[in-house]
Amino acid sequence: MKRILLLGAGLSASTLIKYLLDHADENNWQLRVVDRSLDLVKHKLGGNPNGVALSFNALDRNERWEELLQADLVISMLPARFHIEIAKDCLELKKHLITPSYISPEMSALNEEVRNAGLIFMNEIGVDPGLDHMSAMRIIDSIKGQGGDIIGFKSYCGGLVAPESDTNPWNYKFTWNPRNVVLAAQGGMACYIDRHQYKYIPYTQVFTRLDTISIDGYGDFEGYANRDSLSYRHIYGLDDIPTIYRGTLRKPGFSKDWNVFVQLGLTDDHLIVQDSENLTPRTFINAFLPFEEETPVEEKWMNACFPLGITDISKYEWLGLFDGSTKLGLKDATAAQILEKILWDKWVLEPHDKDMLVMVHQFTFLLNEEKRFIESSMVNLGDDQEHTAMSKTVGYPVGICAKLILNHQISERGVLLPIKPEVYNPILDELEELGITFQELEKVV
Amino acid sequence: MKRILLLGAGLSASTLIKYLLDHADENNWQLRVVDRSLDLVKHKLGGNPNGVALSFNALDRNERWEELLQADLVISMLPARFHIEIAKDCLELKKHLITPSYISPEMSALNEEVRNAGLIFMNEIGVDPGLDHMSAMRIIDSIKGQGGDIIGFKSYCGGLVAPESDTNPWNYKFTWNPRNVVLAAQGGMACYIDRHQYKYIPYTQVFTRLDTISIDGYGDFEGYANRDSLSYRHIYGLDDIPTIYRGTLRKPGFSKDWNVFVQLGLTDDHLIVQDSENLTPRTFINAFLPFEEETPVEEKWMNACFPLGITDISKYEWLGLFDGSTKLGLKDATAAQILEKILWDKWVLEPHDKDMLVMVHQFTFLLNEEKRFIESSMVNLGDDQEHTAMSKTVGYPVGICAKLILNHQISERGVLLPIKPEVYNPILDELEELGITFQELEKVV
Repeated sequence: MKRILLLGAGLSASTLIKYLLDHADENNWQLRVVDRSLDLVKHKLGGNPNGVALSFNALDRNERWEELLQADLVISMLPARFHIEIAKDCLELKKHLITPSYISPEMSALNEEVRNAGLIFMNEIGVDPGLDHMSAMRIIDSIKGQGGDIIGFKSYCGGLVAPESDTNPWNYKFTWNPRNVVLAAQGGMACYIDRHQYKYIPYTQVFTRLDTISIDGYGDFEGYANRDSLSYRHIYGLDDIPTIYRGTLRKPGFSKDWNVFVQLGLTDDHLIVQDSENLTPRTFINAFLPFEEETPVEEKWMNACFPLGITDISKYEWLGLFDGSTKLGLKDATAAQILEKILWDKWVLEPHDKDMLVMVHQFTFLLNEEKRFIESSMVNLGDDQEHTAMSKTVGYPVGICAKLILNHQISERGVLLPIKPEVYNPILDELEELGITFQELEKVV
Repeated sequence: MKRILLLGAGLSASTLIKYLLDHADENNWQLRVVDRSLDLVKHKLGGNPNGVALSFNALDRNERWEELLQADLVISMLPARFHIEIAKDCLELKKHLITPSYISPEMSALNEEVRNAGLIFMNEIGVDPGLDHMSAMRIIDSIKGQGGDIIGFKSYCGGLVAPESDTNPWNYKFTWNPRNVVLAAQGGMACYIDRHQYKYIPYTQVFTRLDTISIDGYGDFEGYANRDSLSYRHIYGLDDIPTIYRGTLRKPGFSKDWNVFVQLGLTDDHLIVQDSENLTPRTFINAFLPFEEETPVEEKWMNACFPLGITDISKYEWLGLFDGSTKLGLKDATAAQILEKILWDKWVLEPHDKDMLVMVHQFTFLLNEEKRFIESSMVNLGDDQEHTAMSKTVGYPVGICAKLILNHQISERGVLLPIKPEVYNPILDELEELGITFQELEKVV
């Protein structure tokens, strides 16, 4: 029997747990799941005889050591910053490791040791990063295999709400960590390259420079630039590509309206707002508007909106932004934390709501003296509150990768990304059976 | 004979050196000046028999130790980050210390030890910080002494170009560190309080929320918010004041035009711009503008300007921003560094140019059931390239403070600010003799 140790049973682990249990008998696996909440683990394991619910502090080295020691494979679904400590233990104990998160410089530094130890530390194998790498690399390798020269690659991904649950004026609900939504695009200028021209977009311009993406049956989306698109040139083996761009998808109009929060400083996560616990939404936003004794907050808000091209206050009214009677009650909070609280009440995913994951790749390439274009798009809808599109598109790739590792189907060793055919082919093939499919359109342009 | 050790003989030390030498004979001082450049020190000492030119690396503890040991007073005009190391030596060797810079948390932490050692570490005694503290505290203490209740305090300062040298379309030249000018207002939201309402302004809004200040004989200025005005409440003993605001002065129109650079990300100092050494001003700004193959850079620039209320391209043309033939030649540079280089050529203070230092305080207070207003303003013009307004308004306060310390006229001990009458009164009185005078206007409002 092979032991899989899963650290963390939060939101995005539901489908992963289901997948591993579904395949436990045939593979002779035991799945051991650790979380601080034993009830949560028990609920997710649903009494399956191949599952063992554990509750201890996985961040404590002593507490996790014995479990790591007995594992054949470790999957860390902990917050990304904790992966490195788990990784060091796995190296010492010679255990394979999977994380869905971006490779940190510290993780990257382990590469040689991990390779020499004959281990696989597979990272970035959720949805974004993860499914984006795999689906893009399959097409890139295919174009290159035919002798094509890729001259443009744009890739977009968005966690959104399913059409049937798209019921509010913002066309948006929180389908993952709300804090990350509020802080989106912060922390550095977006940079990409467009027909050999490097382009830089500061945070306060990101939500104004938008692409339009259309998907059959799902209508239009808008895309804003992700932070660093340039580093993907090397990862994807496209070092000299004249155009590369990665973006985030929203429904049309979202970015323009969101931009008001950005411009006024309401997404700032550094400064603690004075006396924040006694603020109402109204006094909160007024603190970021000019002092004009005679002017109502609504009018000052619209004065700030007008230069941004917004003339309709109703979306902001719908958020309860001008409510002057409800105290927010957040002590020593930043503007971003206060805004998140205001939005949370309105953008919450209701029990009957379904989320939607959208991914689009656009390739332009030269082949046989023709300029050709491929658009590959994937839309996945959540099944329910537990098996959301987010949980499925993260959990299935991680689960399938676990199977590949335990069945010795991955030959590469080291700190890895899922960019090799031996990894992406079986995963993408099985994902298709699981209903996560890409539609491909190819044409001469 | 008393030895004054001056570390650093850069720009702002010229007038300080002159003052100390002018008063050396009568006070029996020897001034020992250290800089990396011996020629610079010799030039500034001008062969004065009371001056000793030294050249060693003041940042090296071993090299400076002997000089510190023999000093009666140490003045550090080094970059602010180096003061703390000098301060620790001064504490160990029991030497008084003066720096013109903001008290760092590390410096502040020495307070008790410094006080127990019977030493004076006087900080923030240049112009801003320095002269602002002293001139404000004199008025604050005077109003309080009469039983007045201060309900509003606004304070502005600006390093500008003298009217006779105000010869370019920006009404601005670099009169101090150009890098700090490019980075002005970055690094945190501005916060202040206005009639009991806390107000926050993010970087990208700072240059759009402007006050107008008029000074007799010098016309109008505009003021934008400095970073943290709130901390001054405690420093000035105005903890419960309903309005406190600190701002930076520019000539009218500057901020609006500068704001374009801010909005486009051209003042960013984090991201290294790709292939920066081969950029021209034109390719540089184009990298921060959208990709539109058919649209000239000038038109894209004006499209970015238009929502900011700017319809005239001439100021930007004058800067050479659209020059597509001159390579900037800066390797691995940030946008801020590249912009600084472009501006430097145009905003340089010519040999015949004079600078101008402007400081304005506005107090509103209640006294004898009247609401009263005091405006206190100071304008100082540079004498020449060496004795600039900046050099005088920094150097004289430091020099006079040195005299007060050596003549045992300061009784307080510890890590200090110049906010006590025993410090600000003799300094402000002597500054008046030296031509640095405040004009006061008081009225009932």
